[in-house]
Amino acid sequence: MKKLVGIGIGPGDMELITLKAYKLIKSCETVFIPESKGESLAGKIANEYIKDKKIIELSFPMGAKNKERYVEAAQIINQTLKDNETGVFLTLGDPMTYSTYAYLMKELIDIHVQTETIPGITSYNAAAALLGIPITLKDESFYLADGNIDEKLLNSVASVCILKVCKNKEEIIDKLERNGFAYTYVKRCTQEDQAVLYKKEEMLADKDYMSLIFARRA
Amino acid sequence: MKKLVGIGIGPGDMELITLKAYKLIKSCETVFIPESKGESLAGKIANEYIKDKKIIELSFPMGAKNKERYVEAAQIINQTLKDNETGVFLTLGDPMTYSTYAYLMKELIDIHVQTETIPGITSYNAAAALLGIPITLKDESFYLADGNIDEKLLNSVASVCILKVCKNKEEIIDKLERNGFAYTYVKRCTQEDQAVLYKKEEMLADKDYMSLIFARRA
Repeated sequence: MKKLVGIGIGPGDMELITLKAYKLIKSCETVFIPESKGESLAGKIANEYIKDKKIIELSFPMGAKNKERYVEAAQIINQTLKDNETGVFLTLGDPMTYSTYAYLMKELIDIHVQTETIPGITSYNAAAALLGIPITLKDESFYLADGNIDEKLLNSVASVCILKVCKNKEEIIDKLERNGFAYTYVKRCTQEDQAVLYKKEEMLADKDYMSLIFARRA
Repeated sequence: MKKLVGIGIGPGDMELITLKAYKLIKSCETVFIPESKGESLAGKIANEYIKDKKIIELSFPMGAKNKERYVEAAQIINQTLKDNETGVFLTLGDPMTYSTYAYLMKELIDIHVQTETIPGITSYNAAAALLGIPITLKDESFYLADGNIDEKLLNSVASVCILKVCKNKEEIIDKLERNGFAYTYVKRCTQEDQAVLYKKEEMLADKDYMSLIFARRA
């Protein structure tokens, strides 16, 4: 049976990949990487590990929900892998957290390609480590969202992280301020062009898609 | 200056450590490990990587919130490290997620020991990968808790993970069922004695402290 292993390569620092994922990449022949607009950030980050591999780019427009794209990608994977071959699919961060891989996995299962998943370091775990701010202490709760937050949840949690804050930034910050949260903006966490912003006006001015707000009850 | 790096070694599989953490352990001399009741799970998991190191056990009774223990542990670290030495402190999962390290870090900063943190794979990221169930798809939210959950949050999230479900298990399951969540129980995720339970009565009968319930809207 053919098998695809979805690998989380972490948020950007090439050494934030797990040993398990690293070894599997080294031992396999075929690496599938997602690309959007001719670029593959996952491929770029893992470049050192995959440069001598057969690399197959699968095109997923950013934020695509289009089922057809996943069906097609699953077919390409099925056609590319030889019988009993195990290939890997690289995904930024963690494969089960806001990832293209979760959609792709479903389509692969439907056409009887076996799947397995190796978890990866998320951008928000990396951001908390970078900032030295706990996500959760004992008995605390954490809320993870993308794009926007539901204000009524804020009363019940100690910390919140909003990924991909591009639009709605002002609305998010207003909600956090109203509910007594201190917040920090981290752009491209652990990537080469990482930046940490503390001032509201700087956050509002920034346009980077790969940014997050990490907030904790002050 | 003396420096302590808090390292997340992941949930149990010794290869779910990051390359960054692995290399740092290899390059340093002194490894601090938390122990409770004479046992150190972190030390056991990382045993292969640390066996030729100077290992200092720091005693933290499970779930201890006692500030004195952290003050004392910080002093031991300060006294053990030589000037300009970098030591590591191993923590199960991720250092910023329900970890002793977050308390310890605060005390180290107070006595001017420099700290740095390397994120780790959490048990819930590993559980989602194991089960092949997404934590979050696009536009979805996730809620992380330990011990118990606030039922009014369940309406607003797609998935929830409750760590350390020992007491309150029936209450948690009732809340999940009432709110239309499908749930799975994972005991000692990726550790040697890992078990996945699907039946409510088996979950209720289990007494393991290192277990989680991962639930997703059905």
